[in-house]
Amino acid sequence: MSTVLEVPRVDVAPRVAADEHVSLRLWLQLLACAALIERHVRERLRDRFDITLPRFDMMAQLDREPKGLKMSELSRRLMVTGGNVTGLTDQLVAEGLVMRRGIPGDRRAYNIRLTPKGKHQFDAMAVEHEAWIVDLLGELPREARDTLHESLGQLKEALTARLAAGSEPHAAE
Amino acid sequence: MSTVLEVPRVDVAPRVAADEHVSLRLWLQLLACAALIERHVRERLRDRFDITLPRFDMMAQLDREPKGLKMSELSRRLMVTGGNVTGLTDQLVAEGLVMRRGIPGDRRAYNIRLTPKGKHQFDAMAVEHEAWIVDLLGELPREARDTLHESLGQLKEALTARLAAGSEPHAAE
Repeated sequence: MSTVLEVPRVDVAPRVAADEHVSLRLWLQLLACAALIERHVRERLRDRFDITLPRFDMMAQLDREPKGLKMSELSRRLMVTGGNVTGLTDQLVAEGLVMRRGIPGDRRAYNIRLTPKGKHQFDAMAVEHEAWIVDLLGELPREARDTLHESLGQLKEALTARLAAGSEPHAAE
Repeated sequence: MSTVLEVPRVDVAPRVAADEHVSLRLWLQLLACAALIERHVRERLRDRFDITLPRFDMMAQLDREPKGLKMSELSRRLMVTGGNVTGLTDQLVAEGLVMRRGIPGDRRAYNIRLTPKGKHQFDAMAVEHEAWIVDLLGELPREARDTLHESLGQLKEALTARLAAGSEPHAAE
């Protein structure tokens, strides 16, 4: 704060406030867009396939890893608790869509992967899912989509850098 | 599909594929950014206030509506099931942070609002929440944040227009 006193306060205070305002507004805008798309996908998954979004997300994560994932890693990626992943896994195993196998040398760990039937079912859903997204985002001109994709790439880089540097305030501040 | 045959296939196919690819990549990029920020906020809320993100989100929704919200509307805004909102409400009522009152003329509906104690507790969390966001997004230059905010505004408009037009494919397609 001491450096603020070295420059005219009347200029700095509104600038700092405006700067903070931009960040919060940006986050709320990002969240609003993600929520609109996610709600649409959620409704479509329910109407077309009678499945929940967490279930689709779990199958999507497993689809990216043909060798499967540890239960703990799956839980981390889905940002849900172990209990929730266990419940989802139980359902999918019962339906023959997912395999759960012990990991040699680690009695408490399990490897989870899609069965061929699960892979087949996910592929069918993924094709439709992509079509919904294409239809929904197609309202935005191609150029605007490219620009936004690039800007979000910059944001992702900045976020990753900030998170890697630790979540405490910058030493210089 | 029939119109595709009227133009050279060798040109059209990759262009269409690339266009679809942009939309899906854009959504995945948006989701990745939202997930990075959300995970950080979730961890911070847990470490600093020992509360969950759904609980914070529910208090944030109520904070915007001093007169309170119907349980059904609250559930809709939070995109969670009625059962989950009921569970969260029960906890918050027990802690004196939220009031639940019957709505005259509608025996099955309830109005939910923050108590003064709940408002006080939420305000304290909201101040810190904003500081985390400012710290996290501050890594992106101010100009880039402004651009991104504007681009996301365009996306939100396009999404809202598309969703209002109904989720069936355009008649012209």
